[in-house]
Amino acid sequence: MPIGIFDSGIGGLTVVKEIRKKLPCENIIYLGDTARVPYGTKSSETVISYSRSNAQFLTSQGIKLLVVACNTASAFALESLRSGLNIPVLGVLEPGAAKAVSTTKSSLVGVIGTPSTIKSGAYTNAINSIDPNIKVYSKPCPLFVPLAEEGWTDDPVSEQIAARYLEPIIKENIDTLILGCTHYPLLKNLIQRVAGDIITLIDSAEQVSLQIERTLSELNMENKDNHYSSKEFYLTDVSDTFISIAGNFLGEKIKDIQHIDIN
Amino acid sequence: MPIGIFDSGIGGLTVVKEIRKKLPCENIIYLGDTARVPYGTKSSETVISYSRSNAQFLTSQGIKLLVVACNTASAFALESLRSGLNIPVLGVLEPGAAKAVSTTKSSLVGVIGTPSTIKSGAYTNAINSIDPNIKVYSKPCPLFVPLAEEGWTDDPVSEQIAARYLEPIIKENIDTLILGCTHYPLLKNLIQRVAGDIITLIDSAEQVSLQIERTLSELNMENKDNHYSSKEFYLTDVSDTFISIAGNFLGEKIKDIQHIDIN
Repeated sequence: MPIGIFDSGIGGLTVVKEIRKKLPCENIIYLGDTARVPYGTKSSETVISYSRSNAQFLTSQGIKLLVVACNTASAFALESLRSGLNIPVLGVLEPGAAKAVSTTKSSLVGVIGTPSTIKSGAYTNAINSIDPNIKVYSKPCPLFVPLAEEGWTDDPVSEQIAARYLEPIIKENIDTLILGCTHYPLLKNLIQRVAGDIITLIDSAEQVSLQIERTLSELNMENKDNHYSSKEFYLTDVSDTFISIAGNFLGEKIKDIQHIDIN
Repeated sequence: MPIGIFDSGIGGLTVVKEIRKKLPCENIIYLGDTARVPYGTKSSETVISYSRSNAQFLTSQGIKLLVVACNTASAFALESLRSGLNIPVLGVLEPGAAKAVSTTKSSLVGVIGTPSTIKSGAYTNAINSIDPNIKVYSKPCPLFVPLAEEGWTDDPVSEQIAARYLEPIIKENIDTLILGCTHYPLLKNLIQRVAGDIITLIDSAEQVSLQIERTLSELNMENKDNHYSSKEFYLTDVSDTFISIAGNFLGEKIKDIQHIDIN
């Protein structure tokens, strides 16, 4: 049985890329809700309702584990999804938060993400529920998603924007910074350059793939001998814009994208 | 009876602002489809279907004229809406195109907009259907919408981005530039600075409000003696993000925003 993954758009493909790297034998079904992207500016009620319909589609395909590869949906909808499903449901938020807690030495952690993710306080809550002594400084970076989608991932303009966004949290002497949006791994090198070597970046896409590995192993649900693992990609709206940039996120060319109407 | 206006989000409020300026006696019902914003990256089928449901909501409120204050929806859905309704339907595209034709002396016109609007070729078609000798140079500017929403409307970073976007069309010696997105009037001063004084900017929000004035006058449907004109604002998703920036677009504070589910 495959792993089901959904995101509001194509950012979650950075999670698929990490899963492919760590668990190459697993079959994957990806759903990008491109007809309703972005979630980051929408209310919690709307995000929960969209997440439920995404999960419904994926579970109807017969999946063994559900990954919510969208920080906004992980912040708002995870509990609601878990209570309605009898398979493991993993978000991108908790693994990143846990890694930040085990990484920081100064107990000063930064978080960047979409306005909704930051406003939800979900990372701060997740970090402080593990260690209440850690101080979390967060900053919404609304231009990072369109910059990543524009492909300006190693660009002086993006670097100026990153410097402006990061300046107030860098000066708080954080030693760890969570990339709290699945688009941000594309800007990782640039963000690292602006943040400097003293700050360790936590890539939530990487952390969730490690968590999937642990969960599958614990439940003895790994697919070990699959030499022809399948990937299926569904989008709720298929536009040329998404197709042309999706490959940048996955790290390889996508062949078959299927359109699905889940409204 | 009021004028009904819809946009994919809050950008269309720049059109409301212009209507308020030119036709202060008209009642207005505005619908921002913030739950499904943006339209600019979506397929034509999806944009048509969303536009129909928006029009259905507004006509059910009893309107005398429908304004499609979204360039993407004007490009894709205008014909479909006109064939299904018995009230005048105006888009933002045709008035801007007509004004550009009457303005240009060199017959070299530039158009900037979202990727979908530009890719649709709708402005080029509209201009060339009036004057086939005009050469149209167009350029998608995907970062302008998030920059306007971030409020970086008079900012060195935005100016660098504008310079990069406009450079290839400026060097074609255009003398007229259409702001083909209802978000762009917020960046008007900055775009004018980058484009230089030789280039005349065509603000489609301004042009559509002049067209509304002409159409209402022709059909003798003006509201002349209304001293307490009403404004109603509906959003399909009400988030703090939209509420906090909507005032920038309208040019005044918005008091009552009502949530409406049209899915």
